[in-house]
Amino acid sequence: MKIALVQLNYIVGDIEGNSKMILENIERAVSDGADLVVFSELSICGYPPLDLLEKRIFVQQCIDAIQDIAASIQNNTGVIVGGPDFNRAEEGKLLFNAAFFLRDGKIEQVFRKSLLPTYDIFDEYRYFEPNRRFEILNFKDRNIAVTICEDLWDDQPMESEFSRSRLYTRHPLEEMMKFKPDFVINIAASPFSANKQEVKQHIFTDKSKKHKLPVFVVNQVGANTELIFEGGSLISSPNGIICHQLQLFNNDYIVADLEQVKKGTTSEIPGLPPRIELIRSGLVTGIKDYFIKSGFKKATLGLSGGIDSAVTLALAMEALGRKNVDVLLMPSQYSSAHSIEDSVKLAENLGVQYSILSIKKIFNLFRETLQPVFNDMPEDIAEENIQSRIRSTLLMALSNKMGHILLNTSNKSETAVGYGTLYGDMAGGLSVLGDVYKTDVYALAEFINSGKEIIPRNIIEKPPSAELKPGQVDADSLPPYDILDEILELFIEKQYGADQIIEIGHQSDLVQRIIRSVNVNEYKRYQTPPILRISSKSFGAGRRMPIVGRY
Amino acid sequence: MKIALVQLNYIVGDIEGNSKMILENIERAVSDGADLVVFSELSICGYPPLDLLEKRIFVQQCIDAIQDIAASIQNNTGVIVGGPDFNRAEEGKLLFNAAFFLRDGKIEQVFRKSLLPTYDIFDEYRYFEPNRRFEILNFKDRNIAVTICEDLWDDQPMESEFSRSRLYTRHPLEEMMKFKPDFVINIAASPFSANKQEVKQHIFTDKSKKHKLPVFVVNQVGANTELIFEGGSLISSPNGIICHQLQLFNNDYIVADLEQVKKGTTSEIPGLPPRIELIRSGLVTGIKDYFIKSGFKKATLGLSGGIDSAVTLALAMEALGRKNVDVLLMPSQYSSAHSIEDSVKLAENLGVQYSILSIKKIFNLFRETLQPVFNDMPEDIAEENIQSRIRSTLLMALSNKMGHILLNTSNKSETAVGYGTLYGDMAGGLSVLGDVYKTDVYALAEFINSGKEIIPRNIIEKPPSAELKPGQVDADSLPPYDILDEILELFIEKQYGADQIIEIGHQSDLVQRIIRSVNVNEYKRYQTPPILRISSKSFGAGRRMPIVGRY
Repeated sequence: MKIALVQLNYIVGDIEGNSKMILENIERAVSDGADLVVFSELSICGYPPLDLLEKRIFVQQCIDAIQDIAASIQNNTGVIVGGPDFNRAEEGKLLFNAAFFLRDGKIEQVFRKSLLPTYDIFDEYRYFEPNRRFEILNFKDRNIAVTICEDLWDDQPMESEFSRSRLYTRHPLEEMMKFKPDFVINIAASPFSANKQEVKQHIFTDKSKKHKLPVFVVNQVGANTELIFEGGSLISSPNGIICHQLQLFNNDYIVADLEQVKKGTTSEIPGLPPRIELIRSGLVTGIKDYFIKSGFKKATLGLSGGIDSAVTLALAMEALGRKNVDVLLMPSQYSSAHSIEDSVKLAENLGVQYSILSIKKIFNLFRETLQPVFNDMPEDIAEENIQSRIRSTLLMALSNKMGHILLNTSNKSETAVGYGTLYGDMAGGLSVLGDVYKTDVYALAEFINSGKEIIPRNIIEKPPSAELKPGQVDADSLPPYDILDEILELFIEKQYGADQIIEIGHQSDLVQRIIRSVNVNEYKRYQTPPILRISSKSFGAGRRMPIVGRY
Repeated sequence: MKIALVQLNYIVGDIEGNSKMILENIERAVSDGADLVVFSELSICGYPPLDLLEKRIFVQQCIDAIQDIAASIQNNTGVIVGGPDFNRAEEGKLLFNAAFFLRDGKIEQVFRKSLLPTYDIFDEYRYFEPNRRFEILNFKDRNIAVTICEDLWDDQPMESEFSRSRLYTRHPLEEMMKFKPDFVINIAASPFSANKQEVKQHIFTDKSKKHKLPVFVVNQVGANTELIFEGGSLISSPNGIICHQLQLFNNDYIVADLEQVKKGTTSEIPGLPPRIELIRSGLVTGIKDYFIKSGFKKATLGLSGGIDSAVTLALAMEALGRKNVDVLLMPSQYSSAHSIEDSVKLAENLGVQYSILSIKKIFNLFRETLQPVFNDMPEDIAEENIQSRIRSTLLMALSNKMGHILLNTSNKSETAVGYGTLYGDMAGGLSVLGDVYKTDVYALAEFINSGKEIIPRNIIEKPPSAELKPGQVDADSLPPYDILDEILELFIEKQYGADQIIEIGHQSDLVQRIIRSVNVNEYKRYQTPPILRISSKSFGAGRRMPIVGRY
């Protein structure tokens, strides 16, 4: 039996476009001799469809489209497509997350997801009733266990200290073993997280080894708003060794022979790229798809002379092309000479178009205008924020005029502690680095420079500064970034409490101060743009904290 | 038996403060002769604690605090307090949403929530394992069915057309009937929605009537960020008639005699206030608690001469007091004379401090500064947005300088169709009217004026305008608000598709255009401030739509 795994980049809600891609790939797979063609989870509508699932008409259109795909299938080929299905029972949630098996011109069997991830960025229990009745797919004399993503994640390790190995009380594959399956299909929409790629592979190879069965996994690829999907669909032999892996961050396709897979014959499997390279590829994918899928071509961003905007620019150019990024340099009376020189050099290295617009006069006029209400109060954070908001107003004006999208350049460290101006440097349509700690921004800069110097050395080496008042540097308000980032990661990703972080050896005052900063700045993060997610705990939908509260 | 219902306003995460309030009220109830004292759902930590529940230390602190409360109880009094509990099983979610029964200095019994709302603003399945094993509380020779909020909502009507009466496959009270309960306790944290107050009462009275049992409901009161809780705790007699109801939007308390309740003896139950009055009270509560619970006293807002800012100001003054609101009037070259006159008159009617800062010069300087990049491109939305962003920069400067919070004045109609400037008039710490359609904003204005004219007649009667270009009025870009609001409500609250809305009699082109505007403006709403929720479907956490997609 020949099984085609088709790894595609779907657009959320684009039932027509997704159907077209699916049909083209069925045709291709059939002509390559495939018996069974497999697409990813909710492939008909793209993942995550979110509250589109609350519209009956939308769900009906998905099912109609799957019917149409079924109607086009000839030659006894089997096809598995993911989509929502109605729950026709008298009680329970209105939908199932389903895998539709198509053959002979019709939907022949429907498999339903049992384990519904409802944590971090996942809200599946919001829409779906869990499956409780297991079935097997019998196709061309093989018994096939059809599972949907999380169905194989019943033994997942949990990252936080608040952990235990079994999040679910059901174990779908174990229940399906009574049908004596010959192999396992898993259709997935499993988002990227740079630290979890190996864990993810092990989820599948462990199942494979445990049950001595081949496992065929098809993941979605590409980005939908903040969520990046790396693809990396794979086939595990019954011995738990990956014998085929599809590309990372690209559409890909394979037709595999079941007998070869059973024998454990391996093709050349490239190892995982280094973490920083994964992050870079993820971010480039995230930027590219945000623009393509929204119908935009060009980005605007502000170059401050600092490392965050430099790295954002380099990534944006890789994603969108040199001609599709316009940058502004917006010096004030507090800007150092090097911040302009460094930015100009960077723009020239990259061959990007730039304009220099001084904000000095506008800033002075704002101060003058506010004089009647400020009287003689000393300058403080209010004046710093005015400068940042003048810059965002200029950047947004350029974006609005030209039909561009403003890219936000804030990193995760400053977003965490609230070191940024709401409606100022925190503005933008998409945050590129908002899930990348400052220490990783430096690592990205070095990686980008690994061939030749693109980001000028001075940008990497000078002490970071917001340059919003004379002589200001980040170190005035923040601890060194290596320490800050370590504490933040323990607090945010690992969910440690203050006591535990102090126990590890961090200074008590500092830990308390950082945690306090993170907690009191929820109100700022509530209004940030979507942040490309590259970690296991990103700001945004995956982390829901009270804004008003005492904690 | 005497039962005390205690309706309090908790601060999320403030375990110490909440404990103190609970202890004081136990003391009061005991001295009033109560046998059983009942507090609301998750009262120990306030509702909703959101991802604070993902920290083991936080949950442990909640349980410790409940232990401490238990330790203080004497005299055989029983107390029911809501809080999270650990799930000590090998498998499943890590927590239960629990009702702790305290007596004799200890936690004597723990009841767990069975139905976990995971829709709209609710994410309970994110944290909690549902209860599957029912128990009864036997206290002073009575059998008491202890339920938690949604546990009695198994037969709820669903608002959308995508509806069916039974969302859940389990029916807790029916299962508990085998224990022959004498009465039912329901501890709740049920948020306010102006349209659903009657439905809510019926949920409880219907259960009461069906099982011929008294039902005692304790709801939380007060607002936590966007969620407003109206209180309105109630007691239903076995005949399904409400015999006691606690105040709306205030802390309240009652000690009721079970025998009297059984007899169906009613006290004077006030009917529900009119919808607009409910909305006004809800919004005032929302503003007040946002400020008090964040430790802020004063608000800033911009008066445009329009009705939205006028109504926001009137509500803010009611919530915070006259001295605690500072307003700015910021005319440009496009402002009409009446917009200043009307605003001055409004400020004077309310006795609020105002300053007039013209943005004319700053706007001109922005245009001049941008000339090298804009060249001779005609003026368009870019210049309109600049004016709006200059105003928000001035307002935020005032807020930052004085330590105020900027109140956002956008209404639901414009937020829906994207008729607003991101980082401009869409800025603010809290959106007061973001869940109030424009037609209801007018109704609020009339209600506010019902005693005497506070909002000048001209503000209510003139055609609404953003005044961002010469002669502009809303009617240039938007349909009449009564039609717009009707279509929006069908689309947003009722989840109707375009076809269904057209079928009702709305013009096809218009419906398509409005739906398209709502869909393409998700990116703007993603960055709006928290919106006080007064409807059953507010923008924010209760409505999660893809930003990038094709739909």
